[in-house]
Parts: sequence; C-alpha cells; structure tokens
Amino acid sequence: MALRSLILLCCFSVLIQFALASKVRHFHWEVGYVYWSPDCVENVMIGINGQFPGPTIRAKAGDIISVNLTNKLHTEGVVIHWHGIRQFGTPWADGTASISQCAINPEESFVYRFEVDKPGTYFYHGHYGMQRSAGLYGDLIVEVADGHKEPFHYDGELNMLLSDWWHQNIQDQTVGLSSNPMRWIGEPQSILIEGRGQYNCSLAAHFSNGSKFCDFSSTHHQCIPIILSVFPNKTYRLRITSTTALSALNLAIGNHKMVVVEADGNYLEPVAVDDLDIYSGESYSVLITTDQNPANYWVSVSVRGRLPKTPPGLTLLNYHPISPSKIPTIPPPISPLWNDYAHSKAFSNKILARQGSPKPPMNPDRQIILLNTQNKIDGYTKWSVNNISLALPPTPYLGSLKYRLTSAFDNKMRPDNFPEDYDVMKPPVNPNSTVSSSIYMLRFKSTVDVILQNANTLTENASEIHPWHLHGHDFWVLGYGEGRYNEKRDVNKFNLKNPPLRNTVVIFPYGWTAIRFVADNPGAWAFHCHIEPHLHMGMGAVMAEGIEYIGKVPKEALGCGVTKKLLMNPHQP
Amino acid sequence: MALRSLILLCCFSVLIQFALASKVRHFHWEVGYVYWSPDCVENVMIGINGQFPGPTIRAKAGDIISVNLTNKLHTEGVVIHWHGIRQFGTPWADGTASISQCAINPEESFVYRFEVDKPGTYFYHGHYGMQRSAGLYGDLIVEVADGHKEPFHYDGELNMLLSDWWHQNIQDQTVGLSSNPMRWIGEPQSILIEGRGQYNCSLAAHFSNGSKFCDFSSTHHQCIPIILSVFPNKTYRLRITSTTALSALNLAIGNHKMVVVEADGNYLEPVAVDDLDIYSGESYSVLITTDQNPANYWVSVSVRGRLPKTPPGLTLLNYHPISPSKIPTIPPPISPLWNDYAHSKAFSNKILARQGSPKPPMNPDRQIILLNTQNKIDGYTKWSVNNISLALPPTPYLGSLKYRLTSAFDNKMRPDNFPEDYDVMKPPVNPNSTVSSSIYMLRFKSTVDVILQNANTLTENASEIHPWHLHGHDFWVLGYGEGRYNEKRDVNKFNLKNPPLRNTVVIFPYGWTAIRFVADNPGAWAFHCHIEPHLHMGMGAVMAEGIEYIGKVPKEALGCGVTKKLLMNPHQP
Repeated sequence: MALRSLILLCCFSVLIQFALASKVRHFHWEVGYVYWSPDCVENVMIGINGQFPGPTIRAKAGDIISVNLTNKLHTEGVVIHWHGIRQFGTPWADGTASISQCAINPEESFVYRFEVDKPGTYFYHGHYGMQRSAGLYGDLIVEVADGHKEPFHYDGELNMLLSDWWHQNIQDQTVGLSSNPMRWIGEPQSILIEGRGQYNCSLAAHFSNGSKFCDFSSTHHQCIPIILSVFPNKTYRLRITSTTALSALNLAIGNHKMVVVEADGNYLEPVAVDDLDIYSGESYSVLITTDQNPANYWVSVSVRGRLPKTPPGLTLLNYHPISPSKIPTIPPPISPLWNDYAHSKAFSNKILARQGSPKPPMNPDRQIILLNTQNKIDGYTKWSVNNISLALPPTPYLGSLKYRLTSAFDNKMRPDNFPEDYDVMKPPVNPNSTVSSSIYMLRFKSTVDVILQNANTLTENASEIHPWHLHGHDFWVLGYGEGRYNEKRDVNKFNLKNPPLRNTVVIFPYGWTAIRFVADNPGAWAFHCHIEPHLHMGMGAVMAEGIEYIGKVPKEALGCGVTKKLLMNPHQP
Repeated sequence: MALRSLILLCCFSVLIQFALASKVRHFHWEVGYVYWSPDCVENVMIGINGQFPGPTIRAKAGDIISVNLTNKLHTEGVVIHWHGIRQFGTPWADGTASISQCAINPEESFVYRFEVDKPGTYFYHGHYGMQRSAGLYGDLIVEVADGHKEPFHYDGELNMLLSDWWHQNIQDQTVGLSSNPMRWIGEPQSILIEGRGQYNCSLAAHFSNGSKFCDFSSTHHQCIPIILSVFPNKTYRLRITSTTALSALNLAIGNHKMVVVEADGNYLEPVAVDDLDIYSGESYSVLITTDQNPANYWVSVSVRGRLPKTPPGLTLLNYHPISPSKIPTIPPPISPLWNDYAHSKAFSNKILARQGSPKPPMNPDRQIILLNTQNKIDGYTKWSVNNISLALPPTPYLGSLKYRLTSAFDNKMRPDNFPEDYDVMKPPVNPNSTVSSSIYMLRFKSTVDVILQNANTLTENASEIHPWHLHGHDFWVLGYGEGRYNEKRDVNKFNLKNPPLRNTVVIFPYGWTAIRFVADNPGAWAFHCHIEPHLHMGMGAVMAEGIEYIGKVPKEALGCGVTKKLLMNPHQP
C-alpha cells in the first residue's frame, strides 16, 4: 500500500513537472496540391490545409509539437523535415524520406511528435524528391520558455520567410535534372517574401525603365506583398529564414541598419550590418530600430553568387501612420555585386557566438575532409563528395541500422579524405564518380571535424556556393579559408574562442569551411548541400551514430523497403 | 525408397506437363519519366525502360507472364493493370492501386505473375491516379497455344494501339479535376496511333486549308507515323486497342472494309464494316484484305461522342512496293458525324458472339441497376453510381477483405437500384451525392445482371458516353436500350442466344446497357467508367466475391494502410 502510494506520488509529480515544463501543441495538416499565384502567375503548388506557404508554428522552448500529417497528394509520398530541430530521442521524426522514415503514402497519416528544446527561428519543409521546390514549407518559431528572457530587447516581431520560385513544375524539373544530357532548372522566375513575389511587374517600376507596376486588383491578392508595419521609435526583431531551392540571397532595408543577434537558433554576438547574406537553410534574427523619418522604406532581397536573372523581391517597411501604398521616393537599396565574394566572406566572418555560448571541445576525435565535386556518371551530371554521389536506398537508414539489415544499403566505408594530387582549382581530370548509398558511421559522443572543401566544377574557372546543412546537430563553424585546406597551415586559424553554432554553413567558391560537432544524437542524419537540385543530384552524405541507443522506431516509419519485409516476419522486431 | 521414387516421378511428370502447357515469360521493367515527343511536341511522359509506349508483350495462351516492375518515378507510387486478363487465382496481380495491391513505392519492385489463359488482343496500363493519361500503357497480345488455331485465317498481323494525348501534365490535370470549381481537362491535343500523332501539322495537309505538312526531319522522329505495310492480295489481322483517357474513336481505312472477328479477347461472328467505333478499354481484331489497287490508303481515327476539337489521327496503309511517302490523291475517309449515335448503336448491335461461344445462364441470381450521374459534393463536381461517388481507401480491398479488416472501408451495403421517381432525362433535382468506399459483395458463383443506366448530366440536354470496364471477368452484353430501363418491357429483348462476351461496354447518352456475368473469380474487382477523369471523379464501384477462396496475398501487395499495421502484428496473418 505504501509502495503503491509512492508510485502514484511519483507519477503525479512527473505529471506536474510535465505540465509545468511543456505544452503539447497539436496540429492537423493535410498536404495537397493547390492552385496558387505566388508571383501573380497562377500555378500548381503544394500547400498545407489549402494554403501556401504552410502555417507558421509558434511554440515555446520545451513544448512538444505534434503534427498529424495526412497526405492528400494523389500518387506521391510526402514527408516534412523540421529544419534546425535536433530531434533528440525522436530521430524518426526528422522527416527525411529514405533516411529517417518511409514517405507517407497518399491518404495515410503520420504523426510528427518532437520537442522544440531550444528557442530560435526555424522552418520546416518537404524532404522528398523536390517537393520543397513546389512550395512545401513554412516557419517554425520557438520562443523562450515561460519565465525565461531573450538576451536582447525588442518591442515587436516581424517575419520574412524567403524562397525562390520557378514556373516549371517540379516533375519537369526533376526529370530534367535526371536526364542525359542534364537539363538545368535555370534561374528562378521570382524571389518570394512570405510566399509573395511579382513576376513581370514590380513595386519599384517607377525606378526602372521598361518594367510595369503590379496590378493587385481582382484576382491577384495572393501576390500582394506582406508589408512590414512598424511604429516609430521602436525595436523590432525581424526573423528571416531562407528555404530557397537554389538562390543565395542578400537582404537590405533602406536607411536601416540590422543588428544580427541569432542564427539557426543560436545567439550571436550582436553585430550591425547594412545588408545581410542568407543562404538556403539558414535563419537569422536581426533587430531594427525605427529611428528614421516616418515614411516607407524598401525591403529588398537580391540574388547573390549566381549571375542574377531574377529581379529582387521587394516589400516595404511601413511606418505608422504613413499609408503603405505610398511608394518611396528613392529606389530600393542597391545590393552588393552578385560576385562580390569578399563582401559575403566579411559578413560570414562577423557571425560569432554570443558570450557564454557553449564552446567546442578543443580537439576532434576524427577529421573528415569532404571534397565537393561536380561529376559525370554514365553521362549523367551528378554532384559528389569524395567521389561518391549519394543515391538514397528504398529502405530508410534509421530502420535498417536499428535492425541491422545490412543488405539495405551499401556497407562500404566512405573515405575520410580525397587524393593528395587532386587540384581543386581545375576541372576534374577524371570526371567520373560512383553512386552509392554508403554512410559515415560516427563513434557515439565523439567529436568530429568536417572540412568541406570546394573545387572547380566541370566548367573551367567555375566554382559554386554550397550551403551545407546537418540534421540532428548544431555544429561550430571554426573557420573559412581559400583554396585547398592545408592542415599544417590552416588548423591554427580555427576559431575555438567564439565560433558560432549553426546547422547550415556555406562553402565559398574554391574555398573550404571547417566545422566541429559532437556526435551525441542517436540516429541517422542527412548532411547535404541545401540547394534542392544539388541534393537531388547526389550532393550529400548520411551520418549515423549511437545506433544502439535509438529507441523503438514507430512502425509507421518502417512500411517500405526491407524494413517492410522485416515487419512481415512474425519474430521481428 | 519406392515412395521417394514415386514422389520424384510425380514431380517430374508435373514438370513435364508444365513445360508442355506453358512457358514463363520474364520481363524486367523500369517505369520512369521520359522526355518524349509523341505528337511532335516535346513533353514529359511516363515510359517503360525509357520508351513510350511500353513494350508490346506477346505470349501464347496458357503462358505465365512475369513482369518484375521497378518504380523509377521519383516520389510517386505506381501499379500496372493487365486489362482483359481475368487473373483467376492471382487477384493480387490485377494492378489496381487501393483495390488489388498497395502502389509500388519509388525504388521498390513488385512481380506481376499471372496466366494469360485465353488468346486475344489485350493491353496494359497504369491504374493509379491519372498515370494512364501520362502514357503508361502498351499492348499485350496473346496468341493461340501451340497446336491450336484461330477460327479465321490471316497472312499477317498489324497493330494499332490508340490513345489521346494532352500537353498539360497529369499533375495539373488531376488538381484541376479535384478543385472547386472543377477545371475540366478539355479535349486532347492529339490522337495517337501506336503512340504517334501530329500536333499543329498534318499528313493530309494537302486536303485542308490552313494546316501545314509535318516536318519529320531532325528531332521529330518520335512522331513519325507507323505505316501499316502490306503486300497485295493478302489478309491481315489488325489488332486495335483503345486506351484513351477520354475519347471515343472511329476508325476507317480508305477503300477497305474491315471484318470484325474478335472483341476484348473473345471471338465474334464475323461482320464487315466500313468503319469501326472503339471506346476506351475496348479491343478489336479486324481482318482486312488487300484487294485494292497497289497504292497508299488513309487510315483515319476520329473522335466520336464529343464535339471534336482534335484533328483525326492519321497513318497510311501502304501496299508493297509503293513508296510510303506517296500521299494518297484523295482525302482521308470522312468519319460519321460525332453525334450520329444511330450509327454507333448500329455498330454495337452488330457485335455478336461467334457460334459455339459460351452462353450466359438463362436467369440471374441478382440484378443491380446502376444509375450514372454527374453530381456535386460540397461544391466539387463528381460522378456517382446510385448516388455514391467512389473514394478509394488507403488499404487495398483485397487485403482488407481477406483479413477481415472491417475498419478499412465503409461497410455499408451499396444499393442495387435507384429511386423510382428519378427522371433520367433531366438534370438531377438534387445534385448532391455522397462519397463512400463501400463495395458490392457478390455471392460466389452467382449470376449477376447489371443494368447500367445513363442519365442527364448537370447540364440541361446533355448525357455522355461512358465505357464501363469490369476487372476479373468477361460479361455477356445482353442488350442496349433507350431511356430508363423498364424491366417488364425490356427484359424480353435481352439477347440470350449469341450475346458477345466483353470486358468493356458502352452506355449511350440517355440509354441503358444490360450485362450478365458469373461471379466466379475470388477477389476484389474494379468496375468503372474507363474515362480516366470520370474514374478519378468517383465513377466506379468495387465488386468482391469468393473472399474465402482468395489464396495467400503476397506480402509485397500489403505494405500500406491497415494491412501494413496487420503485418506488424506478429500474430497475423
């Protein structure tokens, strides 16, 4: 009797703690195709509950998010990845098809249930085929837990979810990329801010010859820009996320400096900038102070790193009580030259961890150097790391690792380095590469350094920007460098004092980027270039750790490939 | 020892019998998107092994077909239905998503293994979403078994696989049909013969003002018509199949009569016609005799039953040794007026079983009258039978019936009739209908009559053609009539003497069609309008029988919906 009381008491106190600590936030989502006019041109997109972009999730640190997702696409599977959420203890909720789960079949449902443990600015998006490019994305904002405070002050919040948009549908895009000869998707038709852009018309038509002003009357309400409405003499937190399929972007606000305070859910040493570079997969919070004359100011988002063929995305910062329909008398801010990489590097180097942030271990247990190359395999254009182009297997790694189904993927070890004589400044002498589903197995709790090494593409004098995103972890960005990484020369330049924690980091053309992380999250995690077509063409790897500590994988995540057959065996699992 | 020898002997004799009786024909197919120019305009289509249309399968009656199909679509499931093959004992190989199996996931494989028990002209096609409309189809021709003879003579064979083609991709088509307001797919851009048509150009440009001759040089080889090459004074069997998404077609060959001898894999009383109507889902064999002056003759395929906006599909019957590039001096044959239903009905009434064909039982055990209506459900346009619009469940019926998973679909009885006061000549007074996954359960081996009753659509003075296709069975076509079926008046007109066996039959505008079949094939079988968008909008039903005799369903067919969960229960199945 006493024991029973004790047990009840324990349960009760656990319940109370749970109630205090977190709230479960339930969502019911249906993912399906919708007609939408994101840039004033009607197209078919993937929406959530009939809307594009998907609904913004707001939660508090420690909350449990529970999204019951039903697939209403007609013949396609679907998954959603919660970008930046580390999924400690719930690796099956990471939403990566073929990695963390089987794609959800049409008319079926899957519950994504996970903790948002850390305040910050995140987003979510499709992670199957090129569904992100079809519009399957939205914001996920985690506020500090009750009783906690952000380490900076602001009076109001504004959101800018940035993306790029093509009029060609993703099926055609995908076929083109997978064809021989490859057909490239080209530059986007529009840059979208909060899912809204203007194709073949401009808010700033007054300032450029030949472009026409947008007509938002009648049916084009879906492309009316979301105005950033502010009161004078206040401080606003602008949460900026980029889920572009391709474009690196630069954001500037006329007459206003931005103080960068957060990146990818981690606090930064505040730094004031005139314009901000943001790569696909990144998020930032900046503070702006409305200390200018009450008026309207341009907010301009331009393409960087590729010869821009897409006009900037535009909206307005509108001071109360000025009418938002009043066009500023001066043109939008001029963005840095698309190939002014010095500007971009200077920005990246300004991003440093806020004092008191967690520091990296002093030394790694393992170093993996990943050469990024564009290749040819049987005539098909691919991207590879260390000469391996990732081909995802039909069986998700999480299930096949957990249940030791070694036949489910290529068990060969992936190389930790690339040949000494490879010249990163030249097109590959031998452009051939191999396709494989092999992975990196990391020792649990070990410290891993990854040097992402950029190289020349198949074209002479060309090297591209790649933003690399790691699932399941934040990593410290130890530094950026030019040319080929040289251990002796470069390791001493690593910033071990205040490197920022990120989940996405860029490698610049012909350069390298060094990151460090602790492999402390049992699961199988994608690590890949966040450019959607590059990932589709094999630019990624999977890293797995702590397999023996992976909890019971929900059966709903296992209904495909070899794990399906496993489930059909009455003695397993 | 003696026993062992006996067993060995038995096995050996079984093996010999098997070798004599049938051959297993193995195919390895990869289904994926391809760039193709079926009508001289490049588009993305679904191909098999990189080809459109899919490869023609040729087999002999009694052979086993084994198609190992791998899904190379990027995010879509896929299945293939073997149209006209009854699948006795292999209902899981019928290739209907949500009915006979789970769609095959990307990168996964499924083996379709089934007997082609009856000689005839068949075809295969996708049966998931609108994938048939994307080009997933091909011919399946079953010759008589060795030692057997066809009941008619011919010197050579020619094929005509007919289809219609839209430039809008199927994702957009599907979204449009599923939207409120519904967006209709419109008329096809081209009629394809053997997968080849000509958009915005014509082989017969000489005979019509304003149209231009096709340029087949350079890259347009994929739309060069397949010429029917013949020698003079011979008899040819022309095998014609129609897998159109929408169009009823009429085929005519200049100066040549056609003797119809086979329909849907069943022999007919030979009948000579000048032109032939063929509806989606039907197949015919006709004999033509090359008894005309050696020359080229037009082969023309026109749209019937809808105001044609699509030019006829054209090719040539080319007599040896005349050059196939010589255009006939007279224009292509003029097809009957699109709405000359008297002509169509006269043709249908000429289709009668060959003497000695199996005869129907004299009386049915059950009569089901199915009213075909166009409806509105919550503002969405749908098609219904007896006021039920079919919504396929995530769990295939075959598995849920076999394993008694009653929660997997709506268990309500479907009605066998419709209200007496319903006026089939007028738009519905109450256009509302209901969506359901309910089915018809048929008593095993019972004789079932179905009266397919047409009606006015939602539009005044409009009633459309619907070709109904039954899976798993042939049925006898007992008769066609005008207006509402009246048991007392009409039952006596049924043809019980020589009704043709078919698997597809048309209902004419405002008319009815009576069919009879024996429910002797354990399984769950689709019965539906073969117009792809009509099926997508709910115009179908599922009929199940002999559930207790269904063999062991391959686990590969069960990896979705409730059956997936069943498989995860170690005590089942």
